[in-house]
Amino acid sequence: MGEFTLIDEIRRRCALSRGDVILGIGDDAALLAPPPGQLLAVSTDTLVAGVHFPEGTAPFDIGWKALAVNLSDLAAMGAEPAWATLALTLPQADALWLHGFCDGFAALAQPHALALVGGDTTRGPLSISVTVHGFVPSAQALRRDGARPGDRIYISGHPGEAGAGLTSHLAAALLRAPAQQDLDHLLARLNRPTPRVALGLALRGIATAAIDVSDGLRQDLGHIAARSGVAAVVRAAALPLSAPLSRVGDERQRLHWQLAGGDDYELCFTAPAAAAERIAALAAQLQLPLSEIGEIVAGERVRVLDANGIEVELARGGWEHFAA
Amino acid sequence: MGEFTLIDEIRRRCALSRGDVILGIGDDAALLAPPPGQLLAVSTDTLVAGVHFPEGTAPFDIGWKALAVNLSDLAAMGAEPAWATLALTLPQADALWLHGFCDGFAALAQPHALALVGGDTTRGPLSISVTVHGFVPSAQALRRDGARPGDRIYISGHPGEAGAGLTSHLAAALLRAPAQQDLDHLLARLNRPTPRVALGLALRGIATAAIDVSDGLRQDLGHIAARSGVAAVVRAAALPLSAPLSRVGDERQRLHWQLAGGDDYELCFTAPAAAAERIAALAAQLQLPLSEIGEIVAGERVRVLDANGIEVELARGGWEHFAA
Repeated sequence: MGEFTLIDEIRRRCALSRGDVILGIGDDAALLAPPPGQLLAVSTDTLVAGVHFPEGTAPFDIGWKALAVNLSDLAAMGAEPAWATLALTLPQADALWLHGFCDGFAALAQPHALALVGGDTTRGPLSISVTVHGFVPSAQALRRDGARPGDRIYISGHPGEAGAGLTSHLAAALLRAPAQQDLDHLLARLNRPTPRVALGLALRGIATAAIDVSDGLRQDLGHIAARSGVAAVVRAAALPLSAPLSRVGDERQRLHWQLAGGDDYELCFTAPAAAAERIAALAAQLQLPLSEIGEIVAGERVRVLDANGIEVELARGGWEHFAA
Repeated sequence: MGEFTLIDEIRRRCALSRGDVILGIGDDAALLAPPPGQLLAVSTDTLVAGVHFPEGTAPFDIGWKALAVNLSDLAAMGAEPAWATLALTLPQADALWLHGFCDGFAALAQPHALALVGGDTTRGPLSISVTVHGFVPSAQALRRDGARPGDRIYISGHPGEAGAGLTSHLAAALLRAPAQQDLDHLLARLNRPTPRVALGLALRGIATAAIDVSDGLRQDLGHIAARSGVAAVVRAAALPLSAPLSRVGDERQRLHWQLAGGDDYELCFTAPAAAAERIAALAAQLQLPLSEIGEIVAGERVRVLDANGIEVELARGGWEHFAA
């Protein structure tokens, strides 16, 4: 399969027409018509085999996740997804692998009306870089720097599930064996995360700051604190715990996954206390848990308190890929 | 050097402020304000060590080339460069390497007023994906599908120099030894190609079709022919030959580099015969050779004719990375 056959295959399987795509895959550059009066939100994320997903991950899941981690960035910005480019590096042109990859990518692109508008296929160690583009009205973007003392801190879904899934997959011997059903659930959270796009859009005008949890809740909340010039206090007992997560590992392991597990792609956001009812209504409407887990205060850094108000220590702050 | 130190370093060395960058590196996504009334041109290209540049290439040259190949796509579209994102995968965080890389990237970004607005750094085999964004008025974009019978075919610069540089570097024994000065010139063309951005902008309203020569002139001209539904006839004797290129290899090797060498990042474009004087004036103004090398005719595919009008055969059509 030559490079041009590869591109044709990707175009055929991932194509989706949008009126604002004037010229898609097949020229030197795509030509796109941004909507007047909105900002363009742009983000790039790369997945490398063995670093961002275990070797042997199904190609469908890799295609899904490569797009999901990028859509998650748009969600965290409150932006509406529109276009993506794909830089795909493959050890060899494997038609079966490519079909699975495209199917996974398309399965997530279609419900978000996201068009693949360009890309590049190269030969080399398996790696996928996706760049996504979305739209957001200037005043409504969810930035990291808007948290204020008194704001409440929220998290969507159940952070920790992806981390527990990864540990269960890579180091099952370290855990009491999870039931197959629980393991399937946790691995699905790891391999097919759900970018919280609808939540991000709904939080326009409500959230004062937002970030997606890719490196672990504590570390990512730390970015909000640092950029906003405030401190964050998280109550460990308030962290939401799903039934499958409650049945793996011990309490200490679970807390580690919840705070530092990474790869969850939930949204962590802040909002004034007065927004509590609107956020509860939003959770019901989206059928997505939105848990209040703490508060923004004056100061700096993130503190996690146990039921007695004592600060919890963690061995590691989160996933920092180049950490010593 | 942690991931966040890496990003800080890249931001510090590659930062360039533009009024249309509302929020740059440091949030979930960049926020950008596209100019009203123009299309956004977007392109992605990846460089993989050992595939797109020889192992041991200087980091400055890698940074330069990673941006150059992308700016070349904007040039081929007639688009004005504006923003870029960078996905950088590195085996380890090497400060000296990173400084060189950023210096090379910035050396090319600055004269084009291109702002780095986002990116991702990951650990893995060395690979660089850049996505560039530029602006072009809708009716003036240089597409591949506008060539018409009777149009003349032009090439900028001296295609073949990069290919000759690569062969000289990797397989010097196959050639009569080039003089050091010639070798330096050819390697500079390979490692620090000049994206023809000013030419692309000047060709708005003149060229009927354009493409940049990354895979070899014959193959890339073939894309114009295929997309435009026409044939192209190239006169081998009209191909421009620089002095350094004229002194390496033999005639057959030189013709191969000129037609199939790849990596030149010159612009191949078509224009009506009546535009010849304007194009000659443009060449003088830009101090860049613009050679008429053939003609668009009815039919399909690219034919290269020797001085006797006999079609020239080539062993390979160009660089197709996944070719069997």
